[in-house]
Amino acid sequence: MRIAFIGLGRMGAGMARNLLRHGHQVAAWNRTPHKAQALAPAGAKIAATPAEAARDAEAVLTMLADDQAVEEVVFGPQGVAGAMQEGAIHISHSTISIALPQRLAEEHAKRGQHFVSAPVFGRPEAAESARLTVVAAGAREDIDRCRPLFDAIGQRAIVIGREPWQANVIKLGGNFMIASMLESFGEAFALMRKAGVDPNLFLEVMNGLFKSPVYENYGGLVARQQFEPAGFALQLGLKDQRLVLAAAEQLSSPMPLASLLRDRMLAAIARGQGDLDWSSATRIAALEAGLE
Amino acid sequence: MRIAFIGLGRMGAGMARNLLRHGHQVAAWNRTPHKAQALAPAGAKIAATPAEAARDAEAVLTMLADDQAVEEVVFGPQGVAGAMQEGAIHISHSTISIALPQRLAEEHAKRGQHFVSAPVFGRPEAAESARLTVVAAGAREDIDRCRPLFDAIGQRAIVIGREPWQANVIKLGGNFMIASMLESFGEAFALMRKAGVDPNLFLEVMNGLFKSPVYENYGGLVARQQFEPAGFALQLGLKDQRLVLAAAEQLSSPMPLASLLRDRMLAAIARGQGDLDWSSATRIAALEAGLE
Amino acid sequence: MRIAFIGLGRMGAGMARNLLRHGHQVAAWNRTPHKAQALAPAGAKIAATPAEAARDAEAVLTMLADDQAVEEVVFGPQGVAGAMQEGAIHISHSTISIALPQRLAEEHAKRGQHFVSAPVFGRPEAAESARLTVVAAGAREDIDRCRPLFDAIGQRAIVIGREPWQANVIKLGGNFMIASMLESFGEAFALMRKAGVDPNLFLEVMNGLFKSPVYENYGGLVARQQFEPAGFALQLGLKDQRLVLAAAEQLSSPMPLASLLRDRMLAAIARGQGDLDWSSATRIAALEAGLE
Amino acid sequence: MRIAFIGLGRMGAGMARNLLRHGHQVAAWNRTPHKAQALAPAGAKIAATPAEAARDAEAVLTMLADDQAVEEVVFGPQGVAGAMQEGAIHISHSTISIALPQRLAEEHAKRGQHFVSAPVFGRPEAAESARLTVVAAGAREDIDRCRPLFDAIGQRAIVIGREPWQANVIKLGGNFMIASMLESFGEAFALMRKAGVDPNLFLEVMNGLFKSPVYENYGGLVARQQFEPAGFALQLGLKDQRLVLAAAEQLSSPMPLASLLRDRMLAAIARGQGDLDWSSATRIAALEAGLE
Repeated sequence: MRIAFIGLGRMGAGMARNLLRHGHQVAAWNRTPHKAQALAPAGAKIAATPAEAARDAEAVLTMLADDQAVEEVVFGPQGVAGAMQEGAIHISHSTISIALPQRLAEEHAKRGQHFVSAPVFGRPEAAESARLTVVAAGAREDIDRCRPLFDAIGQRAIVIGREPWQANVIKLGGNFMIASMLESFGEAFALMRKAGVDPNLFLEVMNGLFKSPVYENYGGLVARQQFEPAGFALQLGLKDQRLVLAAAEQLSSPMPLASLLRDRMLAAIARGQGDLDWSSATRIAALEAGLE
Repeated sequence: MRIAFIGLGRMGAGMARNLLRHGHQVAAWNRTPHKAQALAPAGAKIAATPAEAARDAEAVLTMLADDQAVEEVVFGPQGVAGAMQEGAIHISHSTISIALPQRLAEEHAKRGQHFVSAPVFGRPEAAESARLTVVAAGAREDIDRCRPLFDAIGQRAIVIGREPWQANVIKLGGNFMIASMLESFGEAFALMRKAGVDPNLFLEVMNGLFKSPVYENYGGLVARQQFEPAGFALQLGLKDQRLVLAAAEQLSSPMPLASLLRDRMLAAIARGQGDLDWSSATRIAALEAGLE
Repeated sequence: MRIAFIGLGRMGAGMARNLLRHGHQVAAWNRTPHKAQALAPAGAKIAATPAEAARDAEAVLTMLADDQAVEEVVFGPQGVAGAMQEGAIHISHSTISIALPQRLAEEHAKRGQHFVSAPVFGRPEAAESARLTVVAAGAREDIDRCRPLFDAIGQRAIVIGREPWQANVIKLGGNFMIASMLESFGEAFALMRKAGVDPNLFLEVMNGLFKSPVYENYGGLVARQQFEPAGFALQLGLKDQRLVLAAAEQLSSPMPLASLLRDRMLAAIARGQGDLDWSSATRIAALEAGLE
Repeated sequence: MRIAFIGLGRMGAGMARNLLRHGHQVAAWNRTPHKAQALAPAGAKIAATPAEAARDAEAVLTMLADDQAVEEVVFGPQGVAGAMQEGAIHISHSTISIALPQRLAEEHAKRGQHFVSAPVFGRPEAAESARLTVVAAGAREDIDRCRPLFDAIGQRAIVIGREPWQANVIKLGGNFMIASMLESFGEAFALMRKAGVDPNLFLEVMNGLFKSPVYENYGGLVARQQFEPAGFALQLGLKDQRLVLAAAEQLSSPMPLASLLRDRMLAAIARGQGDLDWSSATRIAALEAGLE
């Protein structure tokens, strides 16, 4: 397929490379051009604008940092919406609000274009090795057209429903689940430290109990208070909690635990931790226990 | 070893049976006598009072419902404290406060008796099949004396520290971690339902993400709203949150997420769910979202 | 002074009338025209667009429902920003975010126009009888020019600082204080009802303790469960909590109590109470106590 | 009347003095004897034990720090329960749990004694000048017998119900209302400080809004960060939140705001503020905003 790939950060670069490996033609664009150029040796054509990348594409894939970046790339002066052909499909992989995919679906439909939302679970290493989990929603025929692409970038694709934004609810819900686990570790480890219990022993017991690699990884970071380098920066974590709370408000579904997580991250940012790993929000529980 | 086993509920019965299988002599007592008598065919001697069971024992094991039951059995008129020989050891397996093992350690020491706290992780099936995880704390020599017993009832024993009550902090912390996971599922599922997303699809994605049998089990109960029969009754869940919050207060370590859990369980009890499974506390998130 | 008054709802109408009484010339505009026309007998000139009202004005006063309404009226195609003369002043009385007055200050400055933010405390009756409290912020000279207008609409004006948005922080903070009081009443009354205590007796004691007309008023509404007619609709109350939380996020100042209030109001809206008085958010505390 | 007065701290001393002024005979006892002896010049008879004070009394008044002190004084070896005559009445003025007055009512009834719970609102100055508010509950005839005493110590007595513990619910609810106000001030002042707004200006606006001397007093303490000397120590404030939460649990009435208050006070205690005024719990909001 002829593909435009917009957004070549750590996640996007791996995904684009896997599409090239599967024989797709890729026209790439990134705001900082050198990241796009890094894909040229692998066979990507480098575009000067999102519009140029999108012009001949059957599918436009976007993997960007936030709502604002997506809006600019889609609706801006050199945006893809104005350049995409009728019948072409936009696949949004970004972690964004539920409101924006609602608008994207409408606007693309007005132009005779198709839209699928397909956020992914997995870290940059998984993007590089095509082991992402793709969570997709959209019209059935659109999803079917996307399958070869999903197969190229991930190990599995789960189809959620007909409304593209429903896939984003799942992505936001998943991030909320991980952040909840972090807070529970934060409070439990603070309690252990006040009790004179070695956090590693508590973690060992929890690993035996939950048997989850996610608990093992993140629990280890918190037990060792190892918040640098940031796998996922706290300020991005706060952005995600803001998105989940906005979804909760739009859908009238109160989430007091998400509110707590937001307040913890906000406190951590107020205390200068914005560039540390988001697991460092657990330091607020320690702070309140008089440990810092 | 000559053992007294006090408390033969679903957990205790399995543990006592495994001690008998390992060739230990067991004198058993239970408040409702027929539960003790069920162990007679397996070789247990049935005692008329805790004191009678404890009189000749090298080790007295207690597995009881709450602080009050332990206090009665240990310090009551026919309690074990008055009957145990000097040098004998009391091993407390119950999920109790951190204050009570502190008192037990003191009182037994006054009488020349030893005390180890060794709460267990695992369900009745694991107790029956000797696959419990034992979390033990106490003086090193005391722990060493207990090892053959831990080997008989569990698949592993993790030693936490010198102070018996430290083992209880870990047990309470572990229950808090599970209850936290339940609340995160409750809020996420309510959001999914308001978004028209099938809870089972969200669960499938979470299982792929966390890869934890605990998430799989409990997530399934909440996704299916299957709160009967109760694996662990909500009113016992509330008791545990009360204990973790009491520990948090004693150790001056605030736990806002534990406070949220307590309030959720309290609401569920106010609405008549005390005998349902504790995972039914997630119904409060659904209620607040207008789903019930 | 030659004044444009934009937004003649229950609050704005009373304020505009008092400006006319003080001899100011008022050109009025309202989205639903009949509300503007109601001011004609009192001497107001009715304008067809915000721009028309603003063209000759020395001061443009806006009293609108939310950020979006202000943005349309100021920056829309027939907006006041394009019509106001150089040197004229825009006085914003609306309860809006802290981000919008920051933008208004910038945009007006670019056009050589002045900007003061002056939200008001008081209900429609106080607007009618010129007993509002005006909380104003902006450049000193600008504030001085506004004083005759503040004198016409309110009983006192308190000057907060040089940055217009600072006045909005105070307004949002004040609404947060009232909403906090409502939640405390909600939880306390639920407790009283579960204890079989007459809520009116509790209220009598609280009135003796706090001696505040605000407690007396709102406490009475909650004690009597009298949530209609709405003095201030719950959905507007939620909007204000959203604004206070957005300010908290922008200023990195976590507000867990504001988060709780938001979640309560969201639950109340999910349960169909959006058009009831915002004090009806207290029904969620009663709901959780099993009282509804 | 012949009165025994047990507990002559800052509150009790003022109350006892007013009873003497009204011509009642007072036998006084205090754990630290010199505080009782200070009442001798005013005409009090000093007793060596609670039992001695209670022996000939028609009414035994207790004003003590907490549940434990009341239990010792009433049920201890030299306690009043064993000494009071049949038909005599025990009036409990202390701020205690709702569980203890339930037990007191039962135990006194068994002995043919009467029991009224009558906690008071007001500070030591109000106790000294007989301006307390008495909140009383008990059997109607018992309340009637107490009225002359209530008239001597307070400016008004409000009768709540037939069950003595119901008066304690109101007292705890009142303390919760004040603590809630403190938290709302704490979060609002932190926001003001981050916005560069003078806290005194915010307080001025709030005083205009609420017109409450309680807001004025406590708001001033928080605005000035003046937490010493302690009018009411934080550790006593925490005790009261514990009591209100225990009442909430006993009555199955969740109070998330009370949970928040508890966690704030616990954090403040963890950070060494136990002896400061309870309004210093507001420092946690400032801490989380990065202000400390």
